[in-house]
Amino acid sequence: MCPKLGLMTDTADPTRPTSLSVRIDLGERSYPILIGSGLLAQADSFSGLPRAAHALIVTNKTVAPLYAEQVQRALQKHYARVYQVVLPDGEAYKDWQTLNLIFDALLSQGSDRKTVLYALGGGVVGDMTGFAAASYMRGVPFVQLPTTLLAQVDSSVGGKTAINHPMGKNMIGAFYQPQRVICDLDTLKTLPERELSAGLAEVIKYGPIADMGLLDWLDGNMDALRARDVEALAHAVRRSCEIKAEVVGQDERESGLRAILNFGHTFGHAIEAGLGYGTWLHGEAVGCGMVMAATLSQRLGLVDAAFVLRLRRLIERAGLPVVGPMLDAGDNAGRYLALMRLDKKSEAGEIKFVVIETPGRAGMRGAPDALVREVVDACCLRQ
Amino acid sequence: MCPKLGLMTDTADPTRPTSLSVRIDLGERSYPILIGSGLLAQADSFSGLPRAAHALIVTNKTVAPLYAEQVQRALQKHYARVYQVVLPDGEAYKDWQTLNLIFDALLSQGSDRKTVLYALGGGVVGDMTGFAAASYMRGVPFVQLPTTLLAQVDSSVGGKTAINHPMGKNMIGAFYQPQRVICDLDTLKTLPERELSAGLAEVIKYGPIADMGLLDWLDGNMDALRARDVEALAHAVRRSCEIKAEVVGQDERESGLRAILNFGHTFGHAIEAGLGYGTWLHGEAVGCGMVMAATLSQRLGLVDAAFVLRLRRLIERAGLPVVGPMLDAGDNAGRYLALMRLDKKSEAGEIKFVVIETPGRAGMRGAPDALVREVVDACCLRQ
Repeated sequence: MCPKLGLMTDTADPTRPTSLSVRIDLGERSYPILIGSGLLAQADSFSGLPRAAHALIVTNKTVAPLYAEQVQRALQKHYARVYQVVLPDGEAYKDWQTLNLIFDALLSQGSDRKTVLYALGGGVVGDMTGFAAASYMRGVPFVQLPTTLLAQVDSSVGGKTAINHPMGKNMIGAFYQPQRVICDLDTLKTLPERELSAGLAEVIKYGPIADMGLLDWLDGNMDALRARDVEALAHAVRRSCEIKAEVVGQDERESGLRAILNFGHTFGHAIEAGLGYGTWLHGEAVGCGMVMAATLSQRLGLVDAAFVLRLRRLIERAGLPVVGPMLDAGDNAGRYLALMRLDKKSEAGEIKFVVIETPGRAGMRGAPDALVREVVDACCLRQ
Repeated sequence: MCPKLGLMTDTADPTRPTSLSVRIDLGERSYPILIGSGLLAQADSFSGLPRAAHALIVTNKTVAPLYAEQVQRALQKHYARVYQVVLPDGEAYKDWQTLNLIFDALLSQGSDRKTVLYALGGGVVGDMTGFAAASYMRGVPFVQLPTTLLAQVDSSVGGKTAINHPMGKNMIGAFYQPQRVICDLDTLKTLPERELSAGLAEVIKYGPIADMGLLDWLDGNMDALRARDVEALAHAVRRSCEIKAEVVGQDERESGLRAILNFGHTFGHAIEAGLGYGTWLHGEAVGCGMVMAATLSQRLGLVDAAFVLRLRRLIERAGLPVVGPMLDAGDNAGRYLALMRLDKKSEAGEIKFVVIETPGRAGMRGAPDALVREVVDACCLRQ
């Protein structure tokens, strides 16, 4: 499970050191991820996509004033009609009612089943636009234009789309691949500090599960990343996309391997659900969840304490929480367990954890409740 | 486009002349259609499906009292837990709110992503259960148990799933194949007369588009079908499924050929939308729509008047309307045109009609508005 880098990455434009392309290899559903500065304003970024009369930009109230106009202008060179739907911002709106705003816009414009959807925003916009594209007239093409670090390194790549149900996050969705992902690094300049950190959680994730070299690089470049050095960000986005491409290319529909990308997410989802979605950002919960999952791996005898400590320090340096919140004043560990049983990876009530088998390689395991309780207690009470 | 029959049909049980199996050939998404009497009550009908702890039967208030208990009992031999959700009956409930009842049931039972959904009912139950299966946790297996003739010969086969949007029918959905289709001919005994006729519209459809031999057989067996002769029904269901299997096997996602299965549907959808969904049954609208589409084919110089008359008589003998309703007291043809422009097959406002190129073969064509107006006038005012 060691990705072969050189095979997948090309320099898209040799005059621009930060303009790169990573390919997701999925047979007839293959597509490129373009990474560079200023891509959203360039009409060329959108060349060679499926032809259509209409394009719809789906974005939100925070992103629209920053980038919608430049994308609109670039797209007008390719489509007779380009229009926008601006959604409210936030995980709380990742629901059917908001999704329906996209369908309302498509139908009231009379857009046909060749119409191309553009998801301009973070993970929520990408997930909702992707599911709308998967479902409108049983499927229209879509393109991801991620404007957050988290979306660029994780959620926009790989074709997972979904909305939330009141009883569970991402419970209703589809595996549906975009035609292209365009990561404009310039958009990261306007990202709030806390969201940058949240994105770094998903970058860090790729180290322990697939590439200890990336972890070494992150140890040396965390300050540059937090200072938004474009070269450093380009490397982090590229390397993350390469690893994700490798994993998704082997297991598009998460029948096995792909689940390792959920390292830290089982504990993380419990934190998000237990505190109420939106209290902690997804990346914050994943950061803390990785500390818990690494601790579980240690207690299972797979990795040593030094490995856990090193990972914990890096997560902390990324500006992320490393101590779990109390979800229940009485039986805190029991509450974590109950919430984790609702995870999509659970089967017949047994929780499947992503653990680090050895540094740089992950696997799936069950664990005795008693051991999980120890981990929760150790990770929540240390402050 | 002449289906090769012998290759696809096997007698599943040689002791039962009406027990047959037709295969839908879609690579790794291939599945069988079982056709016979008493299949729903037999546990064997459900052998060899993906294993799971939970099975959910989705049905409606009309069908549940008739068949839900026998299916429940047969399924209990295969799953630790079998439960049911009973939806309201009718096209008016093919919406997000009703779909959500399925998700609510799945989540409140803690059903995981191996759970198998069983669609027990007609086209609406099949379409909704299929879309729920496509979307729950990004996809769980499902099985079609069609209890109407229309569902057995058409909607349960081929993987089209959808719900309606207030602005259009079947606008939100997925191409998602079932694991198996089980057509129990006994369920047709309880079908209201009007629904039997509606199902016959889709059987008749396969003649002009693919097999004039079927049309000959229908001329000789229409009375037996309306009298619910099991042998005749078995032949009609089998032959319809064979032709649909052949077409869908060549074009799963309706990028070309598959659209011929919509013969009569473009005019039919205008009738349904114009009168308000549910006023005419879908099959009734398709029956009348086929007369209109055949008339259009004649005016385009493709078929002769005798062919149109023969088809019209057969549709009438099936108990279906052959004269179009007035949708607008002023500009009736204009109203038909406006409604047809909203059809999913339309591209950039141009209506694509399924026409009979020559008896037994269909194709897609545009047509001048003036000609379509003539057809609507001729087919609506003849009474």
